[in-house]
Amino acid sequence: MNINTVTTKPHDRMAKALSHEMEAVNSLIRTRMASEHAPRIPEVTAHLVEAGGKRLRPMLTLAAARLCGYEGDHHIRLAATVEFIHTATLLHDDVVDESAQRRGRPTANLLWDNKSSVLVGDYLFARSFQLMVETGSLRVLDILANASATIAEGEVLQMTAAQDLRTDESVYLQVVRGKTAALFSAATESGGVIAGAEDAQVQALFDYGDALGIAFQIADDLLDYQGDSAATGKNVGDDFRERKLTLPVIKAVAQATEEERAFWQRTIEKGRQQDGDLEQALAIMGKYDTLTATRVDAEAWAEKAKAALDVLPEHEIRDMLRDLADYVVARLS
Amino acid sequence: MNINTVTTKPHDRMAKALSHEMEAVNSLIRTRMASEHAPRIPEVTAHLVEAGGKRLRPMLTLAAARLCGYEGDHHIRLAATVEFIHTATLLHDDVVDESAQRRGRPTANLLWDNKSSVLVGDYLFARSFQLMVETGSLRVLDILANASATIAEGEVLQMTAAQDLRTDESVYLQVVRGKTAALFSAATESGGVIAGAEDAQVQALFDYGDALGIAFQIADDLLDYQGDSAATGKNVGDDFRERKLTLPVIKAVAQATEEERAFWQRTIEKGRQQDGDLEQALAIMGKYDTLTATRVDAEAWAEKAKAALDVLPEHEIRDMLRDLADYVVARLS
Repeated sequence: MNINTVTTKPHDRMAKALSHEMEAVNSLIRTRMASEHAPRIPEVTAHLVEAGGKRLRPMLTLAAARLCGYEGDHHIRLAATVEFIHTATLLHDDVVDESAQRRGRPTANLLWDNKSSVLVGDYLFARSFQLMVETGSLRVLDILANASATIAEGEVLQMTAAQDLRTDESVYLQVVRGKTAALFSAATESGGVIAGAEDAQVQALFDYGDALGIAFQIADDLLDYQGDSAATGKNVGDDFRERKLTLPVIKAVAQATEEERAFWQRTIEKGRQQDGDLEQALAIMGKYDTLTATRVDAEAWAEKAKAALDVLPEHEIRDMLRDLADYVVARLS
Repeated sequence: MNINTVTTKPHDRMAKALSHEMEAVNSLIRTRMASEHAPRIPEVTAHLVEAGGKRLRPMLTLAAARLCGYEGDHHIRLAATVEFIHTATLLHDDVVDESAQRRGRPTANLLWDNKSSVLVGDYLFARSFQLMVETGSLRVLDILANASATIAEGEVLQMTAAQDLRTDESVYLQVVRGKTAALFSAATESGGVIAGAEDAQVQALFDYGDALGIAFQIADDLLDYQGDSAATGKNVGDDFRERKLTLPVIKAVAQATEEERAFWQRTIEKGRQQDGDLEQALAIMGKYDTLTATRVDAEAWAEKAKAALDVLPEHEIRDMLRDLADYVVARLS
């Protein structure tokens, strides 16, 4: 690693390396998010576009295409497609979760109403669908159709599984694939497909995106219990207060004494929380050291992501993707 | 017309003529509506499947394909796709409209919750997307992507335009295309495309679906003011009470005196309704005879639908499609 590698975040370096293409993606997003007829649409979408975000998913598509030597321009459409699917999902998520804030700004469902969020989300799905049809690749369409189904299924599963103590690590993994990893892997895989990469490389790109997404989500769920709120923008224990069964708790439930089980039932399943419960939850997780075990899992997925890259060509982008996997879990210690 | 034609509804005759294929569609719908992982999905979708409905849209796809001599089986997937898009739209509509009943049964958002309706709707969109990719036709995908965007845009437009007296007949037409005609025309057009019909016939099928959908929706909006509630399952004036600006009112607003304009502002824009307002609204519409003018419009669209069929081959299905256009407006007098 040179000094530049150490001091700059890998996704910032990647954004710089792909800045020309990212600009084309942003411009396409702005054009296609608009609507000639319904003025509410540009109002809501402008709010989302201005909120920014890291645009990590479209960047992964561009990175995969570049890494496989692509020289056309369909990856721009594909990257915008991926961001549209992500944004549509966020709009619907905020309705489902009744969220009031995202990225430190009021959510669309709060600024307008749930109706607008549901319908503008549907509009963005439809726009993403038009964009991907323009790539003319049935294989890309197949990947994104399957990812969409996995995402929706994962969201439904999360809704019913989040407050159910029978939720084990395998169900958790399914939920995580739906809410995060499916779009990461579709982003990288479809970037390879559009570039005409060979099957083993396409598979490697899928594996990378899948493992990176899982590491990313596990890290997120862990930071909810150990992060400092200034860095994450969330308060410690938000997931506990919202009765979301995530990996650190699932690992504690699996080993719970009868008394501890009663505690989780009361606080997570029934939601009858009182002062001191978060401290108690953290104490039980500390007893079984589940925060460490969760970090070990996240690190293992990050290693898996890096290993997948081995069959891909040597390239500065490949190094950045490797660093990105490290970075996702480096936040944890 | 033979006796059979006179006594049986055209969509029932069509269902009989296409019964073998409709069964295949229903079976495919049942298979693909399920979910291996998330039990909430089959619960909600079973509720919708059992509710039945006429399955008019998938029937139009099958009819178009048959009329154009198609002999493959992709039209079955396409018909199921169309029904999935329709069902997903209904789920989201009921959330947006806060509906409690559909087809005489409690809605999914009432039986479960808004979250389930939003997410299961998303799931059905994704499943429809997978099904249409299986047809392997980029042209079909293009048609359905564009229809999806028109539908979503129309829904957003309706949300903002429905209670705004500036909404004129051209905006109304856009809303109607979004909420009804776009899926009708996509159903017929894509049926022709999958059958490999020539361009003029594909265009005719689009025109037929578009005009039929518009006639259908105008008729629906008219029946809200003149129908008997036993036949329609709705109470006279529901749209007025829900402050929906539909064609009979739009025509009255366009000719309103200052006093009448104040009445529409109070009742539709501000929603401050009181006893006797519906009767007053009907009296104003009677003064300008807007119910008749609306019926004339619906009949003109039905004629347009029938005329479009002229370039298509002579066929019993073509006769049924023609009768269907007549039937849609025959309810009105």
